[in-house]
Amino acid sequence: MGNTFGRLFRLTTFGESHGPAIGGILEGCPAGLSLDMDAIQLDLDRRRPGQSAIVTQRKESDKVSFLSGIFEGKTTGTPIGFQIQNDNPKSKDYDHIKKTYRPSHADFVYDKKYGDRDYRGGGRSSARETACRVVAGGIAKQLLSGVSIQAFVTQAGDISLEKKWDSLDLQESEKNPVRCPDPTTAKAMETHIKEVRKKGDTIGGVVGCLIKNVPIGLGEPVFDKLHAQLGKAMLSINAVKGFEFGSGFGGTRMKGSEHNDSYNSDGSTQTNFSGGIQGGISNGMDIYFNVAFKPVATILQEYETIDKEGNKVKAQGKGRHDPCVVPRAVPIVEAMAALVLADFALLNRSSRI
Amino acid sequence: MGNTFGRLFRLTTFGESHGPAIGGILEGCPAGLSLDMDAIQLDLDRRRPGQSAIVTQRKESDKVSFLSGIFEGKTTGTPIGFQIQNDNPKSKDYDHIKKTYRPSHADFVYDKKYGDRDYRGGGRSSARETACRVVAGGIAKQLLSGVSIQAFVTQAGDISLEKKWDSLDLQESEKNPVRCPDPTTAKAMETHIKEVRKKGDTIGGVVGCLIKNVPIGLGEPVFDKLHAQLGKAMLSINAVKGFEFGSGFGGTRMKGSEHNDSYNSDGSTQTNFSGGIQGGISNGMDIYFNVAFKPVATILQEYETIDKEGNKVKAQGKGRHDPCVVPRAVPIVEAMAALVLADFALLNRSSRI
Amino acid sequence: MGNTFGRLFRLTTFGESHGPAIGGILEGCPAGLSLDMDAIQLDLDRRRPGQSAIVTQRKESDKVSFLSGIFEGKTTGTPIGFQIQNDNPKSKDYDHIKKTYRPSHADFVYDKKYGDRDYRGGGRSSARETACRVVAGGIAKQLLSGVSIQAFVTQAGDISLEKKWDSLDLQESEKNPVRCPDPTTAKAMETHIKEVRKKGDTIGGVVGCLIKNVPIGLGEPVFDKLHAQLGKAMLSINAVKGFEFGSGFGGTRMKGSEHNDSYNSDGSTQTNFSGGIQGGISNGMDIYFNVAFKPVATILQEYETIDKEGNKVKAQGKGRHDPCVVPRAVPIVEAMAALVLADFALLNRSSRI
Amino acid sequence: MGNTFGRLFRLTTFGESHGPAIGGILEGCPAGLSLDMDAIQLDLDRRRPGQSAIVTQRKESDKVSFLSGIFEGKTTGTPIGFQIQNDNPKSKDYDHIKKTYRPSHADFVYDKKYGDRDYRGGGRSSARETACRVVAGGIAKQLLSGVSIQAFVTQAGDISLEKKWDSLDLQESEKNPVRCPDPTTAKAMETHIKEVRKKGDTIGGVVGCLIKNVPIGLGEPVFDKLHAQLGKAMLSINAVKGFEFGSGFGGTRMKGSEHNDSYNSDGSTQTNFSGGIQGGISNGMDIYFNVAFKPVATILQEYETIDKEGNKVKAQGKGRHDPCVVPRAVPIVEAMAALVLADFALLNRSSRI
Repeated sequence: MGNTFGRLFRLTTFGESHGPAIGGILEGCPAGLSLDMDAIQLDLDRRRPGQSAIVTQRKESDKVSFLSGIFEGKTTGTPIGFQIQNDNPKSKDYDHIKKTYRPSHADFVYDKKYGDRDYRGGGRSSARETACRVVAGGIAKQLLSGVSIQAFVTQAGDISLEKKWDSLDLQESEKNPVRCPDPTTAKAMETHIKEVRKKGDTIGGVVGCLIKNVPIGLGEPVFDKLHAQLGKAMLSINAVKGFEFGSGFGGTRMKGSEHNDSYNSDGSTQTNFSGGIQGGISNGMDIYFNVAFKPVATILQEYETIDKEGNKVKAQGKGRHDPCVVPRAVPIVEAMAALVLADFALLNRSSRI
Repeated sequence: MGNTFGRLFRLTTFGESHGPAIGGILEGCPAGLSLDMDAIQLDLDRRRPGQSAIVTQRKESDKVSFLSGIFEGKTTGTPIGFQIQNDNPKSKDYDHIKKTYRPSHADFVYDKKYGDRDYRGGGRSSARETACRVVAGGIAKQLLSGVSIQAFVTQAGDISLEKKWDSLDLQESEKNPVRCPDPTTAKAMETHIKEVRKKGDTIGGVVGCLIKNVPIGLGEPVFDKLHAQLGKAMLSINAVKGFEFGSGFGGTRMKGSEHNDSYNSDGSTQTNFSGGIQGGISNGMDIYFNVAFKPVATILQEYETIDKEGNKVKAQGKGRHDPCVVPRAVPIVEAMAALVLADFALLNRSSRI
Repeated sequence: MGNTFGRLFRLTTFGESHGPAIGGILEGCPAGLSLDMDAIQLDLDRRRPGQSAIVTQRKESDKVSFLSGIFEGKTTGTPIGFQIQNDNPKSKDYDHIKKTYRPSHADFVYDKKYGDRDYRGGGRSSARETACRVVAGGIAKQLLSGVSIQAFVTQAGDISLEKKWDSLDLQESEKNPVRCPDPTTAKAMETHIKEVRKKGDTIGGVVGCLIKNVPIGLGEPVFDKLHAQLGKAMLSINAVKGFEFGSGFGGTRMKGSEHNDSYNSDGSTQTNFSGGIQGGISNGMDIYFNVAFKPVATILQEYETIDKEGNKVKAQGKGRHDPCVVPRAVPIVEAMAALVLADFALLNRSSRI
Repeated sequence: MGNTFGRLFRLTTFGESHGPAIGGILEGCPAGLSLDMDAIQLDLDRRRPGQSAIVTQRKESDKVSFLSGIFEGKTTGTPIGFQIQNDNPKSKDYDHIKKTYRPSHADFVYDKKYGDRDYRGGGRSSARETACRVVAGGIAKQLLSGVSIQAFVTQAGDISLEKKWDSLDLQESEKNPVRCPDPTTAKAMETHIKEVRKKGDTIGGVVGCLIKNVPIGLGEPVFDKLHAQLGKAMLSINAVKGFEFGSGFGGTRMKGSEHNDSYNSDGSTQTNFSGGIQGGISNGMDIYFNVAFKPVATILQEYETIDKEGNKVKAQGKGRHDPCVVPRAVPIVEAMAALVLADFALLNRSSRI
């Protein structure tokens, strides 16, 4: 359980960090979609380790192979099987955690739940699985023609983007390694990340996401509201601790008379505290939300923890890890948003006779 | 779609605000559970309109009838059908919105999605459907014997509970109409809500929830992480704009070295920034989270909006509405948490051979 | 589990034979369908006890009430809740089976599976639940405008319809109580059923079904082939022991050169051994299949059996029961076929971009 | 859609006949199961082309690679990804069907449903996908320790096994290429198959299956009855036209007084017309059923058909094909039965508190 996402546009993934490969099966992609493979690989490259000086320096080429469901460049309607080799598994790096539980990792709970675990590189709980989300999300983006999904970093540690999104050129975010749309703030964040890394420590941050040109009517009533599914999608990404959309937590302090979004004659609204979603259904305005990421649990410092038998042991983080995940989380956030929207777009084909 | 919640412990609901009844079918409740019907009704009464001076004064008795799945006081393993009559539908109160879209309600999107809508009382988008969640959640609570789930108000408008949860007796929250565990803050919130109501305005707020004695191992890897499903559950409640668990949005500003929860020899942790969930799986520590509610959209003031044809019209909120939903949202948050945990508890029965 | 049928057009049911009511929730019916309520009730009447001299004489009015999802005569896209009162529960008729397991009934397995059971009238295992299928199937039929689904009896005990379907006017089947399209055979079956009933015994039979004007393309590859889902649907009806479509079991004796259906220029086929389905997908030709029903297990004779403790006991069938279920099974077969087709019709909306 | 089978023990497959590989993801296999890889490969070899003189002589090694979910020889509870290379794709063999619809194949309906198709070797509709079922079924068999699942051929063309199953040593079936448990009948079937092949023609047949030592209580009420799911499983196998269990179609001619299975004191029954399933739930007796396979559609004779434009064309079956599929279908039937039982065994863990 837990390895499938979506109802009609549905991704199922497999794979541990240090097995031979990770991969997935994407079901329900309608037939006849011409796929731009380079665009998919580009998103994988945005997520890839080693892409800049401020992310983990692990070497993973992250090239995806498609095994089915595509014929002469187009989807055929049958399931799209795909795979990414794990081409550089340094499993020895993980011998030290074989019998040790790293704090705030999944080691302990996997052992308790399943009786044992593939400890190499975090196994199934490794963020490596998110590469499969990016592959499927890349296909979803192409299915959602006309819709623009752009994520970017708004906070790294305690450095926040102070300017409002709509005053910024979001394309700027891809021009710096932090993926913050304001070059000055990006520079400060970059410096901050480097300092933190030097101390063997880590920080968290916030990723914002803006989605434009969403058709009206996506989302389903009651339990499968559009923002509920977006929230689940984001919260399922490793290290995420919170999700808010539209006015979010800040909006709780407003009055109803301030918060209500008045209509223009064309059905658009004068303000957008609703964040593009009303009653769980898209209203055609921009969807925007924030995703909170905790500081990376793997720190390159000595720490005390316990082993399988409950003995206190000293341990030391090793290997090549991210000091801050938000720059690499940006394409994952986009991918998950695309999966949610693609699924609802297909479901919405049945809303009327 | 969208009317079913859960995988094994699964609730499907129906019903509009002003139809003859709302109700649901709860599948997958294991056989042999002795049900305390009074406890279920008590939760319904905590959600019920008219329970205090600071909530809507609509008259709804909210008595649940069980139609199947229970025999001689115990569950039989077959689906539990239940129903709540809509005994006081003043549909005429809603004639004024028949052709008008209320700002920040679901009127507009339902019309666009489905071509038409049952406009009386918000129809399917009315928060009345949450009564069915409370019924099923009440059964889930009883299935989760030993687990304690307690929600309470931590913010109403701009008045926040400043004290830390663990310094408070949470039982206090049920002794005041706001459901805030600190009597002094509760009093201030109550006064604030009354002032806002006097102006025909509304406010939002935050509901916190604390869950104790959760078995280790609940939650599934990757997409169905425990907190992802909790987040979806909470975000599916009407008016919710955000969800955070454990250290939440605040935790993004911490260092990894501060944020990591060190283990005690027994597997418990010295701190609990993880919020009782690591890698998406419960670790036996307390689970806690916050849910953000926007200010109620129905204000008893005159406002400008549009009709179905896009003409600008003046409108005026009427009827009996909540100035602030958080007091009544408390049992709904608990019910949804119980549904999530009960489902994962059953799923976890298959985690090992 | 087991109480939901369908993916997008999805029925969930509840209810025991002698509880206050049975009912269901139909999700996923597209908005905007004008419902002919009389047509739905007509199908219920075709299934109803007491409709003729050769079926059970139990008095059940089987009037359906709709509780949601329909507004001003049309579906709204929200779930359709419905209910049928159990207005004549003679539970005392079942005191004799409280501690006794009737042979070839579900008494024994329910007790073993769940630890206990609602023994009155068979509880959840009673064929009474099929009334809910007929309600939802009646809506499905209306969604499938243009498609004709007609079931009829082709065998009762050892009396078979010898003429070929296509040589008969299938409308004739509704003019006799057996629902066999050939009046002469129908008469013989009727006589046979009466003789069997006189002896307190029962017989089985076969229901055939012919579906015309099915759109090309319904059904999904691999596991959810159209005939696989039809087969599951039919086999889920009480007392069914077998399903075959197209050439069926008889076709296994043919040569490939005889069995292959040659194409006409318009894509229709000259023969139809495929039964309107190739590779699991409808090809536009008539779909036809047979459903085998075992003899009714409740016989009005004395028999030996065991009680809960394994003691041998004498028992005697009592009450008002069918000597042969096939006449009343006809509308149930149609309803299940309609549910399958409606679901695939909606799923097929996502087959292409 | 259509590529996933099961609820908790759940297989999703991908792959076309002539793509780089086929494969699947098996979710929900409990942790801690020691896997016998040779047993899995043995079942694959029983399904493999080229295994004897009476099956297709295509060369396919059908070696499975496991990519995840197994660590140090045991399942870990995470999804089991696996893959089988397509190592001998003679795609040129299929150029002749690029624009032609083979009678009683899926060519026509795939084109109509999806707008286009991967025509090489039948693409997704090829029976090659059944290899993935055998892999997952092999794991399911190992999870079902103590349960014995044995399929065998009871009819090939018009030659039937006349002896009753229980009078035969079913192990004999694996000692002859036809997989019929009676050596004399097997020999006759083999001769028949060879004659048919010589003429470039094909035949169908029937596969029986006997399952022993099934725990009581598997199967779910109403829609997911054990036999309904078994029926769906079998009907989803390529070329299947019918399914019957227990007394099947023949039982429709019996009287209730003959057909009812009387209980012994231990809850076993004196006869077993029920086929080990009552009310959709296993009762501990042997489960047995028959599966009807149509004659193979690919005949090595000239035939007339149509092309994409509806023009009449002459065509000729080419390549290496089975004259009769039942010998190779035996392990597929077993695999699907195992998948059904494993899923219900896990679901049944939630039947009681």
